[in-house]
Amino acid sequence: MKALVYHGPGQKAWEEVPDARLQEPTDVVVRVDTTTICGTDLHILGGDVAAVTDGRILGHEAVGTVTEVGDAVRGFSVGDRVLVPAVTKCGRCEYCQRGMPSHCQTVGGIGWIFGHLIDGTQAELVRVPYADTSLYLVPDAVTDDQAIFLADSLPTGYEVGVLAGGVRPGHTVAVVGAGAVGLSAILTMGLWGASRVIAIDSNKFRLEKAIEFGATDAVEAGPNAVADVLSRTDGLGVDVAIEAVGYPETLLTAAALVRPGGTIANIGVHGRPVELPMQDLWIQNVTLTMGLVDTVSIPTLLTMVASGRIPAEKLGTHHFTFDQMDQAYDTFAHAADHLALKTVITPA
Amino acid sequence: MKALVYHGPGQKAWEEVPDARLQEPTDVVVRVDTTTICGTDLHILGGDVAAVTDGRILGHEAVGTVTEVGDAVRGFSVGDRVLVPAVTKCGRCEYCQRGMPSHCQTVGGIGWIFGHLIDGTQAELVRVPYADTSLYLVPDAVTDDQAIFLADSLPTGYEVGVLAGGVRPGHTVAVVGAGAVGLSAILTMGLWGASRVIAIDSNKFRLEKAIEFGATDAVEAGPNAVADVLSRTDGLGVDVAIEAVGYPETLLTAAALVRPGGTIANIGVHGRPVELPMQDLWIQNVTLTMGLVDTVSIPTLLTMVASGRIPAEKLGTHHFTFDQMDQAYDTFAHAADHLALKTVITPA
Amino acid sequence: MKALVYHGPGQKAWEEVPDARLQEPTDVVVRVDTTTICGTDLHILGGDVAAVTDGRILGHEAVGTVTEVGDAVRGFSVGDRVLVPAVTKCGRCEYCQRGMPSHCQTVGGIGWIFGHLIDGTQAELVRVPYADTSLYLVPDAVTDDQAIFLADSLPTGYEVGVLAGGVRPGHTVAVVGAGAVGLSAILTMGLWGASRVIAIDSNKFRLEKAIEFGATDAVEAGPNAVADVLSRTDGLGVDVAIEAVGYPETLLTAAALVRPGGTIANIGVHGRPVELPMQDLWIQNVTLTMGLVDTVSIPTLLTMVASGRIPAEKLGTHHFTFDQMDQAYDTFAHAADHLALKTVITPA
Amino acid sequence: MKALVYHGPGQKAWEEVPDARLQEPTDVVVRVDTTTICGTDLHILGGDVAAVTDGRILGHEAVGTVTEVGDAVRGFSVGDRVLVPAVTKCGRCEYCQRGMPSHCQTVGGIGWIFGHLIDGTQAELVRVPYADTSLYLVPDAVTDDQAIFLADSLPTGYEVGVLAGGVRPGHTVAVVGAGAVGLSAILTMGLWGASRVIAIDSNKFRLEKAIEFGATDAVEAGPNAVADVLSRTDGLGVDVAIEAVGYPETLLTAAALVRPGGTIANIGVHGRPVELPMQDLWIQNVTLTMGLVDTVSIPTLLTMVASGRIPAEKLGTHHFTFDQMDQAYDTFAHAADHLALKTVITPA
Repeated sequence: MKALVYHGPGQKAWEEVPDARLQEPTDVVVRVDTTTICGTDLHILGGDVAAVTDGRILGHEAVGTVTEVGDAVRGFSVGDRVLVPAVTKCGRCEYCQRGMPSHCQTVGGIGWIFGHLIDGTQAELVRVPYADTSLYLVPDAVTDDQAIFLADSLPTGYEVGVLAGGVRPGHTVAVVGAGAVGLSAILTMGLWGASRVIAIDSNKFRLEKAIEFGATDAVEAGPNAVADVLSRTDGLGVDVAIEAVGYPETLLTAAALVRPGGTIANIGVHGRPVELPMQDLWIQNVTLTMGLVDTVSIPTLLTMVASGRIPAEKLGTHHFTFDQMDQAYDTFAHAADHLALKTVITPA
Repeated sequence: MKALVYHGPGQKAWEEVPDARLQEPTDVVVRVDTTTICGTDLHILGGDVAAVTDGRILGHEAVGTVTEVGDAVRGFSVGDRVLVPAVTKCGRCEYCQRGMPSHCQTVGGIGWIFGHLIDGTQAELVRVPYADTSLYLVPDAVTDDQAIFLADSLPTGYEVGVLAGGVRPGHTVAVVGAGAVGLSAILTMGLWGASRVIAIDSNKFRLEKAIEFGATDAVEAGPNAVADVLSRTDGLGVDVAIEAVGYPETLLTAAALVRPGGTIANIGVHGRPVELPMQDLWIQNVTLTMGLVDTVSIPTLLTMVASGRIPAEKLGTHHFTFDQMDQAYDTFAHAADHLALKTVITPA
Repeated sequence: MKALVYHGPGQKAWEEVPDARLQEPTDVVVRVDTTTICGTDLHILGGDVAAVTDGRILGHEAVGTVTEVGDAVRGFSVGDRVLVPAVTKCGRCEYCQRGMPSHCQTVGGIGWIFGHLIDGTQAELVRVPYADTSLYLVPDAVTDDQAIFLADSLPTGYEVGVLAGGVRPGHTVAVVGAGAVGLSAILTMGLWGASRVIAIDSNKFRLEKAIEFGATDAVEAGPNAVADVLSRTDGLGVDVAIEAVGYPETLLTAAALVRPGGTIANIGVHGRPVELPMQDLWIQNVTLTMGLVDTVSIPTLLTMVASGRIPAEKLGTHHFTFDQMDQAYDTFAHAADHLALKTVITPA
Repeated sequence: MKALVYHGPGQKAWEEVPDARLQEPTDVVVRVDTTTICGTDLHILGGDVAAVTDGRILGHEAVGTVTEVGDAVRGFSVGDRVLVPAVTKCGRCEYCQRGMPSHCQTVGGIGWIFGHLIDGTQAELVRVPYADTSLYLVPDAVTDDQAIFLADSLPTGYEVGVLAGGVRPGHTVAVVGAGAVGLSAILTMGLWGASRVIAIDSNKFRLEKAIEFGATDAVEAGPNAVADVLSRTDGLGVDVAIEAVGYPETLLTAAALVRPGGTIANIGVHGRPVELPMQDLWIQNVTLTMGLVDTVSIPTLLTMVASGRIPAEKLGTHHFTFDQMDQAYDTFAHAADHLALKTVITPA
C-alpha cells in the first residue's frame, strides 16, 4: 500500500510500504476513504514531537471501510463504514472506565497513538487496535466529508472548549483564535445555548468564518481587544474564555477576558511556560482547564450532524487526492494565505 | 467602644472609637464575643492591601450576640448568638443568586468587606450589613471556640480546597502547606471520603497536627517531596493537589503532584505571577481552580461540627483577651515558633 | 383600585377594592401593566385549592411598573419596569439559599403566594413582598408581551421539564401534552441541544403549534402513541419524557416512553394518586422528577428572549383588557375551542 | 465440576455438570473460591424470574482465581485473584460507554446475566464473558471474605441508594429496611458525609446491626415510624429516603419521610404496582430514583475496603462450604430467625 511516511524533521514521503494487517484479535484493518491533516502533524514535521521517529506513517484522522476483522471483534464487520478517531481506547483501564481515554494507560499512557506511537491514517490502509471500543459506525445521514472532522477537530473544540469550559444557556463566550479548532468550538457552542459568542482573531477571513459558523461578535486581535470585549460584556468580562491558539499571549488574553467565577478553557498546544498573573487571578474564583481530547463526544456529535444542527462539512475548504499529499500539507501549513480551514484528502 | 484600628503599614492600636451603630434598615449590630486573626490581617499590616486605609477597624471573623436590629431585618433578634462570616452577601445580585457571594456586586464587587472596605470584627461591637442574608445562628451544640473558625478558615479550606478540588470517595489528595488553612482542608476532607491524604510541609509541628487532623501521610517539603509523593501514588500522582501557601514554588509543587485528569485547587493568596509549565500541563487534562471563599458551606459545616464529625476547636491553640491584642498578633505572626495555629480572642 | 376577587368556588368579580400599599420595608407596590391567567387559577375557581378563601385577589403573573418602594429596598426604584414572578423568595432561608425558593420557608412554606396566600396580580396594583430578592428588571429588548410568560409558564416548562429532565445535547425528548406548559418546554428545549423533540397531544392545533415552536415530531395521543414513539426511537424509547398534563394516564404514558437510564419529568398538577408499575420500572434505572417552579431561571430566559432565541410572545394568542376579565377567563378555560394558548391582559 | 443447578420453582441441586470452559476469545474461566447468595436467588427459586429455566447454574457473585484465559484477553492472567461482579459489561455499547452497564445492550439488554441468562457462580468454575471489561483484580489488602460483598450487595447499597440518592455532607438520610442491602447503604453512607442516618426496621437484630454499621438513629417500623422520623428532622423530613425492601408500603413510607427538594432512592425489587400519592408529591420537588446496580463503583469500594474505611466483612455472618449449599440457602431464606445477614460459601 502507499502511505505518508515521516523521515525526520521536515522530511516526509507518500511512498510504498507493507500493507497494514491484523496483529491482535481485537484489531481491524480499515481502508482509508477520507483523511485530513491536523496542526499536530505540522508540529511533528517541525521535529517537536520526540516520540515520532523515522519510518512512522503520519495522521490520526480517518473515515473508511473495514476490510479485515480480528477474531475477538464483535461490533464491526467487513464493509462497515467507520470513523477512526484520534484517540484509541482499551475500554478497561481506570482512565477509559471514567471516560477519559485521552490517558488510556493500556495503549501508551496517552490515547493519541495513530501517527505518533503506531502507524497512522494518512495511508491507504490502517490497522486499528481495540476496534470494538475505539471505532464508530458512521450513520447514512452523515457524509464522509462531515464525519472526517469528527475524528479530532470538532470533538476537540467541543470537549476541550465547550464542555470543559462549562458553557451553559445564556452564557457569553469568547473564543481567542478562530482557526479550525476555535471554529469547531464555535460550531458546537449552540448545543449548550450560549447567547453571545465573541470571536477574536487577527485574520479577516477567519473572523468572517466565525460569524458564518455562529459567532455573534467578531473582534480584531490586538492591543484593544481586551478592552473591546469588556465593553461588550458589562465591564466584567465573559463567562467562558476559550483559548484556541497555544501561545502565552493568547492564554493571557483569555485570562484577561474572563469574569469572576468564569472559566478559561485552554485548547491550544503550548510549547513554553506561561507566566500566569496569580496575584490578580487568585481572588477571581476562575477555573483554568486544559487537555487532550477524549473523543467520547463523538456519538453526540454524529447525532447532531445527522440532524442537520452541526454543518461539519463547512470546515473542509480544500480537497485533495492521496497523490497530492504534499500540496495538501502545503495548503494547510499556510492556511491563512489560502483562505483554508481544513483539507479533505481522498484516494482519487 | 474599643477596637483594633489600622494606622498605616505596621501601625495598629487597640483604642477607643465611636460605637458601631445601625446605618441601614437591613443592618444589625453584634457584640463580639470571640474573634480571631487571619493571614490576610497580616498582609494588611504589611501594607499589601491598598484598599485598607488609616482608621479602618481590622478583622473579618466573629462570633457574637445581636444587640440591635434594623427595621427590615426579619431573621434575627436581639440576643441571638450569631456567626459573622468573612463574606457579606446582599442576596439579590447575580453573584449572590448563583451562590458566589465572594463577588457580590452590591457590597463592593467583592464579598469580603469587614476590616477591608468597612469596619471589622476585632472590636467590641460590629455593624453587620445585609444581616438577614449574611449572618448565621449558632446552634447550642456548637461552642464559640468552634464557631469562630467557621467564619473563614474552615470554609476556605473546605470550599476553595475540598469542594473546588472535587474531592470524591476513594481519592488521594495532597495538601501543600499545613498551616491553618491547609489543616482546615484536611479537617473537612473526610466529608467527601478521601481515602488518602498526604500533607506536605517543612514544619514538624504542622505535620504532626496534619496527622492528628486526619492526614494519612506526612511528607517533608524539600527537593525530594515530589518524588516521594509520586512513589506513594503509583507514579501517576494524586487526584487532587491543594495549594495552601501562596508562593510560586508551592503552586508548582502542587502542579507536579497531580495525575492526568486531576485538579489543582489553589487556596493560597499570591503576591506575584507564577510561571506555569503549560508545555507539559496542556496535555494532562488537569484543572486549576482558585478563589476567595463564599462561606456558603457554613450551614453544612455547622451541622458537621454539631454532630461531632469536625473538631473545629482544635484549630485554636492560643487564647487571648481583647487587651492582649498585640500579643495575639505577635503569636500568630510567628505561629511556627509558638507552635500556634489560630488564636482565640475574647473580651476578658 | 380594581381587582379580580375570588368569592368561593365558581365565583369571581372584577371589582373595587382598597389600593395595594406597602406593609413592610422590604415591599414595593407595582402597577400592573400586563397580566395573564394560569391553569392554577382555574383550579382555584374550581374550589380545589383550600388555602384560597373568599376575598382573595387572584393571579400570580405580572409585568408592571414600580410605584412605591419600601425603606429597605435597594435594588428597585419608582418607575422601574419589572417582572413579578409566580414565586416570592425571602433570599435567606435554607431553601432560598440553595436556589429552591419554591419551598421558601419564610413566605409560607411554599414560594407561590400571590393569588394564593396573599393578594395577587390580576389587579391594577399589587404589593410585592421581599422585592429585592423576588423582582426582576425587564431589559429594553424584551417586550411586556414576552416578559409576561416568564412569570410562570416558560420557567415552569424549562425548570420542571427541561432542567429537571436533564435534557442534554443529542437527546431525544417526548413531551406528553402540548398545552401552554408543554409548549414552554418545547420552546426552551433547544437551549440544551435536544436533537429530536416528539410532541404528543390529542389536539391538532396544539400539535401544529408544537412543530412551530421547535418539535421535530408530532404524534397523536391515543392507544397507539406509545408504540409510535418507540418505533421512532430504536425501540428503547426517549432519553427524557416530560409529562405536562397532570393525569394518571399521561404520567403512565410518559413512563412507558422512557428508555433505561432516562428521566420522566412530571410538570403536571395532579389531583389523585398514580399507580406506578414499579414491578417493571425498578430495573430500568429511570428517575422521576416533579415540582413547583422556582423561577430562578428567569435571568437566563430574559437573556435568551432578548437575544431572539426564545420567541416568548408566541404563547400569547388572545388579548384582553382588564374589564374583559370574564371573557379572558372564558377563553382560557376553553382554550382548545378558541385555538388559544395563553391570554394577554392589559389595562386598556 | 459441581454446581448448584436450578430445576424449576423450588427445585435446585448441588450436582455434577460439565466443566465451565472458554467459548469466546474474550472469556476467562475462574475457579470460585468464595460465593454467596442474593435475595434475587430466592426470587428465582420462587419461580418469579421467567428467564431462568431448568438446568441453569445459579449465582451471580464470586471471588476466585483465573484458570484459563481467552486469546483476546489482555488484562488478566492465569492465577490472578479476581472479583466477578453481578454485572457483565461489553465496554462498547452506548450504555457501557456512559457507565450504565446495568443495561448493556450486548450481553442481553441487561447486564445481570450470571445465574440468569448464562450459568452462574454457585459452582466450582464459572465462565466469565467480556473478562477485560468486567472483572476486577482484588488487591492484597482485601480478603475474599470482604471482596465477595463487593460483587453485588455493597455496590447496590452504594450506587442505587447512596449515589442515586445524592447523599451529600451534612445530609440526614433514612434507610427503610435494614437487611443486607439497606445495611450496605449504611456502611457506605459515610463516604459522602451524611451527618445523620436513621435506620427503620421491624427487626431488633437488624436495627442493632444498623447502629453498629454507622446509623445514628434506630426507629422501629410501624404506624408511628413516619411521625417519629419527622419529629427527629425538624418536621420537614429527611434529605434522602432510601427504600431497601421492595414493597408498596415501604416505598410509601420512604415517600412520606422525604422533605421538599429531597430524593427517594428505591433499591427494593418490586413485584407489583405502587399507588404513588402524586396529588401530594407533585408540589414537593422530590425525585424518585430506582435501578439495577451498575457495579462501576467497585474500584472506589475496593480502595475504601483496603484502607479500612468500609468493614465489608461484617456483612458475612454465617459460613458454609459448597456441599452445605442447601443449608446456606435455608439460613439466608430465614435470615431473621438465624440472626443472619449474608452467607459466605467456600469450597471446603
